[in-house]
Amino acid sequence: MTDLFWPGDERAGDLLSGAALLTAMVAVEDAWLGALVDAGVAPATARQPVGSLVGPHDLEAVARDAETDGNPVPGLVALLRERLGEGDPARWLHRGLTSQDVLDTALVLAVRDAVDRVSEELRAQTGTLAALTGTYRDAAMVGRTLTQHAVPVTFGLKTATWLTGVVEAAVSLRAARGRLAVQVGGAAGTLAAATELARLQGLADPAAVTVDLVASTAATLDLPARTPWHTSRGPVTAVGDALVTCTDAWGRLAADVATLSRPELGELAEGRAGGSSTMPHKQNPVLSVLVRRAALTTPQLAATLHLAAATVVDERPDGAWHAEWATLRDLARRSVVAGGQTTDLLAGLRVDTGRMRATLEAADGTDAEQHSMVELAGGEPAGDYRGATDLVIEETLSRAQAYLQELA
Amino acid sequence: MTDLFWPGDERAGDLLSGAALLTAMVAVEDAWLGALVDAGVAPATARQPVGSLVGPHDLEAVARDAETDGNPVPGLVALLRERLGEGDPARWLHRGLTSQDVLDTALVLAVRDAVDRVSEELRAQTGTLAALTGTYRDAAMVGRTLTQHAVPVTFGLKTATWLTGVVEAAVSLRAARGRLAVQVGGAAGTLAAATELARLQGLADPAAVTVDLVASTAATLDLPARTPWHTSRGPVTAVGDALVTCTDAWGRLAADVATLSRPELGELAEGRAGGSSTMPHKQNPVLSVLVRRAALTTPQLAATLHLAAATVVDERPDGAWHAEWATLRDLARRSVVAGGQTTDLLAGLRVDTGRMRATLEAADGTDAEQHSMVELAGGEPAGDYRGATDLVIEETLSRAQAYLQELA
Amino acid sequence: MTDLFWPGDERAGDLLSGAALLTAMVAVEDAWLGALVDAGVAPATARQPVGSLVGPHDLEAVARDAETDGNPVPGLVALLRERLGEGDPARWLHRGLTSQDVLDTALVLAVRDAVDRVSEELRAQTGTLAALTGTYRDAAMVGRTLTQHAVPVTFGLKTATWLTGVVEAAVSLRAARGRLAVQVGGAAGTLAAATELARLQGLADPAAVTVDLVASTAATLDLPARTPWHTSRGPVTAVGDALVTCTDAWGRLAADVATLSRPELGELAEGRAGGSSTMPHKQNPVLSVLVRRAALTTPQLAATLHLAAATVVDERPDGAWHAEWATLRDLARRSVVAGGQTTDLLAGLRVDTGRMRATLEAADGTDAEQHSMVELAGGEPAGDYRGATDLVIEETLSRAQAYLQELA
Amino acid sequence: MTDLFWPGDERAGDLLSGAALLTAMVAVEDAWLGALVDAGVAPATARQPVGSLVGPHDLEAVARDAETDGNPVPGLVALLRERLGEGDPARWLHRGLTSQDVLDTALVLAVRDAVDRVSEELRAQTGTLAALTGTYRDAAMVGRTLTQHAVPVTFGLKTATWLTGVVEAAVSLRAARGRLAVQVGGAAGTLAAATELARLQGLADPAAVTVDLVASTAATLDLPARTPWHTSRGPVTAVGDALVTCTDAWGRLAADVATLSRPELGELAEGRAGGSSTMPHKQNPVLSVLVRRAALTTPQLAATLHLAAATVVDERPDGAWHAEWATLRDLARRSVVAGGQTTDLLAGLRVDTGRMRATLEAADGTDAEQHSMVELAGGEPAGDYRGATDLVIEETLSRAQAYLQELA
Repeated sequence: MTDLFWPGDERAGDLLSGAALLTAMVAVEDAWLGALVDAGVAPATARQPVGSLVGPHDLEAVARDAETDGNPVPGLVALLRERLGEGDPARWLHRGLTSQDVLDTALVLAVRDAVDRVSEELRAQTGTLAALTGTYRDAAMVGRTLTQHAVPVTFGLKTATWLTGVVEAAVSLRAARGRLAVQVGGAAGTLAAATELARLQGLADPAAVTVDLVASTAATLDLPARTPWHTSRGPVTAVGDALVTCTDAWGRLAADVATLSRPELGELAEGRAGGSSTMPHKQNPVLSVLVRRAALTTPQLAATLHLAAATVVDERPDGAWHAEWATLRDLARRSVVAGGQTTDLLAGLRVDTGRMRATLEAADGTDAEQHSMVELAGGEPAGDYRGATDLVIEETLSRAQAYLQELA
Repeated sequence: MTDLFWPGDERAGDLLSGAALLTAMVAVEDAWLGALVDAGVAPATARQPVGSLVGPHDLEAVARDAETDGNPVPGLVALLRERLGEGDPARWLHRGLTSQDVLDTALVLAVRDAVDRVSEELRAQTGTLAALTGTYRDAAMVGRTLTQHAVPVTFGLKTATWLTGVVEAAVSLRAARGRLAVQVGGAAGTLAAATELARLQGLADPAAVTVDLVASTAATLDLPARTPWHTSRGPVTAVGDALVTCTDAWGRLAADVATLSRPELGELAEGRAGGSSTMPHKQNPVLSVLVRRAALTTPQLAATLHLAAATVVDERPDGAWHAEWATLRDLARRSVVAGGQTTDLLAGLRVDTGRMRATLEAADGTDAEQHSMVELAGGEPAGDYRGATDLVIEETLSRAQAYLQELA
Repeated sequence: MTDLFWPGDERAGDLLSGAALLTAMVAVEDAWLGALVDAGVAPATARQPVGSLVGPHDLEAVARDAETDGNPVPGLVALLRERLGEGDPARWLHRGLTSQDVLDTALVLAVRDAVDRVSEELRAQTGTLAALTGTYRDAAMVGRTLTQHAVPVTFGLKTATWLTGVVEAAVSLRAARGRLAVQVGGAAGTLAAATELARLQGLADPAAVTVDLVASTAATLDLPARTPWHTSRGPVTAVGDALVTCTDAWGRLAADVATLSRPELGELAEGRAGGSSTMPHKQNPVLSVLVRRAALTTPQLAATLHLAAATVVDERPDGAWHAEWATLRDLARRSVVAGGQTTDLLAGLRVDTGRMRATLEAADGTDAEQHSMVELAGGEPAGDYRGATDLVIEETLSRAQAYLQELA
Repeated sequence: MTDLFWPGDERAGDLLSGAALLTAMVAVEDAWLGALVDAGVAPATARQPVGSLVGPHDLEAVARDAETDGNPVPGLVALLRERLGEGDPARWLHRGLTSQDVLDTALVLAVRDAVDRVSEELRAQTGTLAALTGTYRDAAMVGRTLTQHAVPVTFGLKTATWLTGVVEAAVSLRAARGRLAVQVGGAAGTLAAATELARLQGLADPAAVTVDLVASTAATLDLPARTPWHTSRGPVTAVGDALVTCTDAWGRLAADVATLSRPELGELAEGRAGGSSTMPHKQNPVLSVLVRRAALTTPQLAATLHLAAATVVDERPDGAWHAEWATLRDLARRSVVAGGQTTDLLAGLRVDTGRMRATLEAADGTDAEQHSMVELAGGEPAGDYRGATDLVIEETLSRAQAYLQELA
């Protein structure tokens, strides 16, 4: 899978592809059917794995049918039943679920895979950035504020600020991942159909049986159980916000790389620059450009998820829910792509410490603040003007280390 | 082409698909090469149609290569040259162009096709809405404001307000379409390479030759010529804004249909309602739901186009441009899909004038305003309270008629 | 009026202030009451100018009361009636109008004033940019694409691209201004109350009388008349889109100024740079920074206007309308401020043509494209490589001239 | 403080007003000056409280001066120094800080106050919703999905879904509040000026002294200390996202109230409905309308904060930072207002359980799903069809209780 309109899209591979979503929807149906049988709600004769009944070749048909009912689940259920043929598996499939249960849980599964990929990128970036920070902690360069030369910094301090963004994003993303839960509520969030079935089968405390069904389905899918969230879309907006927090962190560092790669600055360069279709000499900071691209688009996608959450009505919404799917897909895939590009960007970054030093030395006025301080307090200026750079770096590295250890 | 995450996507068919963009890019290269030869800038031996050299089977490779240079054009040019083999066509292909020329012009071509489809939908809707307005101009119903019963209106007046939105959107879209122009500026908007070639070939007034090259390329592609707009993205934002204006108009009427389809209101119903995966009786207003979905997402896409336009820098931008492509694709395809759904929705709309009348008659207080007026001015209340409904309808229909006649 | 959170806000003065909106609302009531009397719908004894009855000192109370009814009009009408005392003016005030009529028309009046201020800025910028383009049409500098050195351009060509953005924005804004119309529809868009009053007064063809009332009110307020647009929000979104198109154009040029003001580039400087609270030497490109700020925020405000338009329901909406007011205010004021800042920025711009030339001469590879062309076509490279720069500039200046002449 | 364009704004009182920000900025200067003296970095003679030196009457002048330097801090520092007169307090004021330190920390203080107000509202809402859920846990009503009647629910289940949204938002907001930290980094995040002063005063380990200065300033202001976050804007985006999560939760329940208040549904009513300027009988769900308004606007404001975070460059940004202030102010104030309106809305909510029951009983097909289950499993339908409603409610109430206990 790739996308001519989004160079680098193939980095996201099959994550949140149509096929992945289809597979995940079938996995949800499969887990639920298994749970029904295991609990004695459905008869043993209803047990049949359905995972292999549909595949990528069915994607087009299922997608095309989805407009009829507004979502792909009824068509998928019909197709699965047709393939199951007469008999209990077909009769019991999907009983107790509503379309939103299947699609939400499938989306959660698919998004979680993307989140995990993003987390791997963040972890790799943390390692690279910690190493860069260690290597360049003393590499003096001019600090720039509002585009102008300010006071000296070191390149290691700069990468420490990048690192802070990356680690904080990783922590947010981990928290949001924890909220990705199973969705099973039935038609209106009451789990009534499943409960009725449990009762009709003579099971004691049918409502409790139903809650257990949800729990065991969740366990099969390795998801947390929780009460239905058909109309409380916090899990969706939280993961959206966390992914945008990642692209924020990457966009911020890519802006630095793009700026410092300008020939007039020349302090950084991408390891593998891109070419021009007409200018043979060009060395474009392509990864930075593509990361910046992503970071310009994702905040509005996350805003769409919030708008959807805020316009939910009734027991299941009339359009707000439907607006989430492609939005979440695009947001997650773009995050994966930008994450991979940032990892590569950092791994290949070329640092010209000589140029940094030369620019700092040639810069006007970067000692002006220090002179003000000397004038104020008397005495002689220090030989350097690095302040607490080392301590800031140390604390940043400690936080990064703590994050990496939690992962270990 | 379809999209499991966006039910109805197949309505947009191949519009702005990867294949369509690829075809359009090749068409741009073809038109330019032809223009070079025709003008005597390239030798006659360079003439060779390139349109058939690549096809959908090349899409994956071209897309995959696009990350290297940040856009798909260098890879495409390399592929075309490889297929052209040694010789003048390969040597002269793309000379004078930059990647952004090819991609922008191709996007314009692809977007224009989508705009034309949307325009057809708007035209069909205008006809349907004019007919509905005529049919129901006297069908009394309760007017509702801030969700509460207000004063009487007619259903024809309501459809007239829908019609106003549709016609105004159509007018905006037509204006934006007219701004979709060819993009040829060369590496930095100076057309220097083409001019140099013209000079080297001994042509008089080489700069003028170049401007003519742009004009003839534009003519071949049936686009207006204009000065380069690498960094002035008005044509892109204008079409984005116009498409959102369409989804606004559709979202507004879909909100009415969804509301009036509630069983407690029951004044409208979709001709073909969607089902539920668990509730056999459900008749969901699926088209309204899907149109509302689109309308919740498109404003943020258009905002992204503006953000891209506003963060352009230098002679060609470093990420802002790249953010446009997929955004424009999604915005245009969703507009086509929502447009078609709205057309179907209107064509199949079921109107229950009996229910409308009954609700109006049973409503409390819808004569309160009239009584205030009678109390103020003395006299007897009129038998109806429709005010200038007829005149408003007439004027709306006249505007719609004028729009349709301009199209004819 | 100023805003600590938005430096420069005082440039917008009283435009769209609470006081300005209050004044405009009263003007609408006044115009309508006058029209009622003039048409014989209200008795001559109802004539009384109400413009001076409330003033800025009432603002706090009117604003505070607005929550009760969800908008400030009912409270304002009650206050006006109280001040009018017993008698016909109080009895006839506001008859035939609904709150949305008054507030929409008042907003239109207030926004129009802001649009006119923005248009003045655009006109001034057009003049300055045309002059800069003329002055620097031959001032060679390196063209930069994707942050890297590309081929030569001139600074006049760069300002011509800025000019294109400004002129196109001005044309869009003028079109949007033309759509700012009076809003009079009465409770549900039927003009029923006014029509009933006309009938009760024995006037012939009362619906036509009402339409004339709208027209004469519009004329008094110097606005176009049109059918009610309570639920067709095209006039609002159009002006929002046009204002964002302005901030796009300014953001784009401010990005160039901020970049080219970097000490390492040093080709441009703001005439009056801002200082730092701790670094005495700093010369920050403050106007560029503040313009960029605005351009980052306005696209989302315009998106909110579209979302509001798209979620309208019924004969008057239940929240969507209310979301427009502050959004439009902020968008318009920020446009005025950014417009003024851009005008000053351009007027004071310092251009270092020596630095431009030196950078171009020192740049690597800016002749690489030309060499490719020479290699392709044979012959000797031209002494310059400016291509059709002159023709592009000429055409841009002609368009700017045409725009200025239409204004004259 | 109130806002004619945003009815209800006065609920936010002075939160994030210009005066509040001014006071907070002075508090930051005061805390820092005190810390400098306490640490022996500044002489004892520099100690002077500055909190009372400026007041609301200075607001206009400070705001007006802010454009010169792009932010209000340099002007404020100059004013404070002028009022301090000659001497050490004036000489030592602000030494070691940069404008962004003062403004960011002041914003954090001001936003924290707003967050605390929102948290109080959330707490009150939690109590009210828990009570409503208890009261109406058995109040049967029809569940609605995609606007259509589905299966039975209870009103207590519906309020439990509202409660879930509110509690989850409260948890997010508490987490974001914890990230609101002091900002002290000096000109470029190195704390160099403060460190230099400590060194010049002969203090041992001057960098460690500086870190302690930050800690003690933070302690004075009751904020967490942390490394500088000039360019890592996670604390800002996190609080923005959390506030939007609140308005999402409120918008979602307000949509239900507005819908269920429609006369045709009539299941809910606001305790105190708003009137119309022309229709005496109207009972508009004004609070719901105003809450929905807010929820339509805040996602785009939070997106702006992310865009700002993602476009940060250098050691302090060139426009991205400036875009945050008013955005954060508007987002926070609107959250406070909508929070208070929601609290009132819930406290005054009128529930018509008779109408709920009647609608459910009259609804077609709400037993269709149950019949399918009976048909599938055999046996007799249960007398009710409430499924696990009780268990879902119990779990929701437990979560709410746990949240309230953590607060206690």
